[in-house]
Amino acid sequence: MDAPAAPRRSLDRWGFEGERFEVPPPLAAWLAQRLGESEPGAPAGRAAPPPGRPLPELPAATSIDPADRLAHSRGRGLTDLIRLRTGTVPALPDAVVRPADHGQLADLLNACARHGVRVVPWGGGTSVTGGVNPRPDGRPLVTVDLEQLSGLLDLDLEAGLARFAAGTPGPAVERPLARRGLTLGHFPQSWELSTVGGWVATRASGQESLRYGGIERLLAGVELIAPGGRLRLAAQPATATGPDLRQLVLGSEGRLGVIASATLRVSPLPERHEVRAALMPGWPEGLLAVRELVRERLPLSLLRLSDGPETAAALAVGLAGRRLAAALLDRLRARRGGGSLLLYGAAGDRRRVAGALARCRTVLRRHRGLPLGAGPGRRWLADRFRHPYLRDALLDRGVAVDTLETAAPWSGLEPLAEAVRGALESAAARAGERCVVMTHVSHPYPDGASLYFSFFFRCPVDPDAACARWAQLK
Amino acid sequence: MDAPAAPRRSLDRWGFEGERFEVPPPLAAWLAQRLGESEPGAPAGRAAPPPGRPLPELPAATSIDPADRLAHSRGRGLTDLIRLRTGTVPALPDAVVRPADHGQLADLLNACARHGVRVVPWGGGTSVTGGVNPRPDGRPLVTVDLEQLSGLLDLDLEAGLARFAAGTPGPAVERPLARRGLTLGHFPQSWELSTVGGWVATRASGQESLRYGGIERLLAGVELIAPGGRLRLAAQPATATGPDLRQLVLGSEGRLGVIASATLRVSPLPERHEVRAALMPGWPEGLLAVRELVRERLPLSLLRLSDGPETAAALAVGLAGRRLAAALLDRLRARRGGGSLLLYGAAGDRRRVAGALARCRTVLRRHRGLPLGAGPGRRWLADRFRHPYLRDALLDRGVAVDTLETAAPWSGLEPLAEAVRGALESAAARAGERCVVMTHVSHPYPDGASLYFSFFFRCPVDPDAACARWAQLK
Repeated sequence: MDAPAAPRRSLDRWGFEGERFEVPPPLAAWLAQRLGESEPGAPAGRAAPPPGRPLPELPAATSIDPADRLAHSRGRGLTDLIRLRTGTVPALPDAVVRPADHGQLADLLNACARHGVRVVPWGGGTSVTGGVNPRPDGRPLVTVDLEQLSGLLDLDLEAGLARFAAGTPGPAVERPLARRGLTLGHFPQSWELSTVGGWVATRASGQESLRYGGIERLLAGVELIAPGGRLRLAAQPATATGPDLRQLVLGSEGRLGVIASATLRVSPLPERHEVRAALMPGWPEGLLAVRELVRERLPLSLLRLSDGPETAAALAVGLAGRRLAAALLDRLRARRGGGSLLLYGAAGDRRRVAGALARCRTVLRRHRGLPLGAGPGRRWLADRFRHPYLRDALLDRGVAVDTLETAAPWSGLEPLAEAVRGALESAAARAGERCVVMTHVSHPYPDGASLYFSFFFRCPVDPDAACARWAQLK
Repeated sequence: MDAPAAPRRSLDRWGFEGERFEVPPPLAAWLAQRLGESEPGAPAGRAAPPPGRPLPELPAATSIDPADRLAHSRGRGLTDLIRLRTGTVPALPDAVVRPADHGQLADLLNACARHGVRVVPWGGGTSVTGGVNPRPDGRPLVTVDLEQLSGLLDLDLEAGLARFAAGTPGPAVERPLARRGLTLGHFPQSWELSTVGGWVATRASGQESLRYGGIERLLAGVELIAPGGRLRLAAQPATATGPDLRQLVLGSEGRLGVIASATLRVSPLPERHEVRAALMPGWPEGLLAVRELVRERLPLSLLRLSDGPETAAALAVGLAGRRLAAALLDRLRARRGGGSLLLYGAAGDRRRVAGALARCRTVLRRHRGLPLGAGPGRRWLADRFRHPYLRDALLDRGVAVDTLETAAPWSGLEPLAEAVRGALESAAARAGERCVVMTHVSHPYPDGASLYFSFFFRCPVDPDAACARWAQLK
């Protein structure tokens, strides 16, 4: 195979071993000012995991190695990291099983069903919602790692359809497509780690969903394997007969069976992809501009609007460069409510990208937006898959951050955002703490948009206390 | 209310009483040459319908008037028209029930469930797939006509969401929206007659789906009433949790319950909507051009490509005007395989429409397309809801026409079209008859397109023989 040797996954942090995104001192200072000084996180703990329960013989490679079981014991949500770092993971799979092909996967699921063994499918293991965590329960449980079901299986160039095995991670999706001048265009923040099957099971959206759509638009066909049999939904451009069963599999989170392969709609690789930034006078003006732009049906790939706190943090992280940031921060301080950073991107040939960006600038100026040039967009593109590493660096310093996501119609967006911010702040206040809440809109639609919240709080050193504070806020 | 007095529905033909689309003599001659001379259809028959079975008292206005029951006995498929015209409808509802509001609808469904009365929901009654036809069966059956559940219920201008009662027909959807500069943009051929609930239940697509999407993209929220309770799916711009239950309701054809209301995504009414025509040298060149145009993501509203026979028929019907048609027909005869008529439309402001149409012309010329000016598009737009009336006029002359629709990836489109044409022609040949098959592509997607077949055959005068021939072909 042509894939370069994969770097090793970190056992108790996001992503790959050795990869870091250190906390820029201005961000550390900005957070300390708002949350109070924090204590460094607990030193790494390692408890030897208890031995697994006995299992029947299973028809696929089965590992009961404690390190392997520990590596498959948690996703990468905040409490997962806290538990992994402190060696306090409450439940592990009894084994990690790696089927070699679809036949083995089917046999394995049948054997597990026969013997009452519970199954957790595992793609990239990046779930932040507990989707891959075993629940403590008397019955034996195996985690089925799909890493051997990987790669491009079929490519129909005429129809623009590519079938991938479920365990294929993002880079292994884009590499064979790029060689043929194609792209899937699905870039969630976990792209380097997460897999095709996981995208479908969790109904994922990527950062360029404005152009390519979320996975629910990219999915043309799917194959699901369950103990009772297989569900093969052939690739269909559209259907007038309902229900659309693909929409049942999308977001099914492993409840219906294990996704074995997916046929995805691919697009020509755009000649250019450019991301620009502008500073809007405030969040309300930014929302109006985003709504107007998305309704214009311009060939945009990305519209991402940060509220005041996230804008300040982005500038502190260095998104706009040091000198521009200092000037902007002064400007923001002078304005009530703070400014709102807008990232906007366009993809396509040179002429259409230039046209779309120019049209954007016109609309943004009408909403009193200040163009910030090409630097911030370039920096954001370069770092977009590295941002999750910042969470570990903050945790090292005793600051926890988790996220919440929802969506609402335009008319309900601001009241909902205010309600969530208020709920988080008052939950923190009840614990005598403070909470910094940042918000952005990154998936706008003609009728509404997603709301993505990041909330920061001081993380107690004791893991149980840390998880309890998290649960209070969440 | 502001709705003008509705014209009366015809009892045994498509649409409104008095509305006609006569067979143009060149089309009659063209068909006779290919099918042989046909006998005029059977004279209208009227048998008094048998009395309905006894029903329990139902909590909504209940009509057992024979004419009302007959008017609700069939949709408007070919065999429906044959049965209605000849007075040989095999099964009628035992009553037509018209609930006055959602509460009555819920009570009615509960009462029917309690008493074992079957229910057929009725919106516009335009189904061509037997969806509203009672099946003969010992148990009593009522047809629930939703005509009193009609109109705009809520309008959220900021989010662009409009909630309509299920029984609202197309014009009553567009009228209140147009007054506020909005449009739903959903224009199926049955638009003047069919209803919001029917569009959702049948997962319908309109003629401008390229711009607005089919009903599955327009539907933001839906309310379904079933004997067991109500299912209210609130308007959501998107969701990352699956399954998407809206996609279960879409195309559910009444199996899950009766759709009571739908919240739909509305758009600004475009300043202009222009449809142009071009003559492509043949179907294969036309398909390549359509695929290229749809992948360019231009702001097009419509791309509709007819094969050789449909192009000839369209010219015979007068789409291109008499003089242009004669010149084109000569030209077509000189070419092997015949030409392929392409209709393409764009909507938006003047500048964007002009830009999109100009870009289309460039692509079409590269595929050796011949622009036909603005006349054919104007004529098509003027007549687009009148075309189904032609079916009745043909039936008066003894020529039957029915349609088939499917979709396939681009790579499988032409083999599938050939297979369907071949199957229809050989089924006709087995009966010693001929069959004219016309094909068009009207819903193109990046990965494939719909295929719409119209097939014409001589209709035996005897209704049983006519239905048998239809069944053989279908």
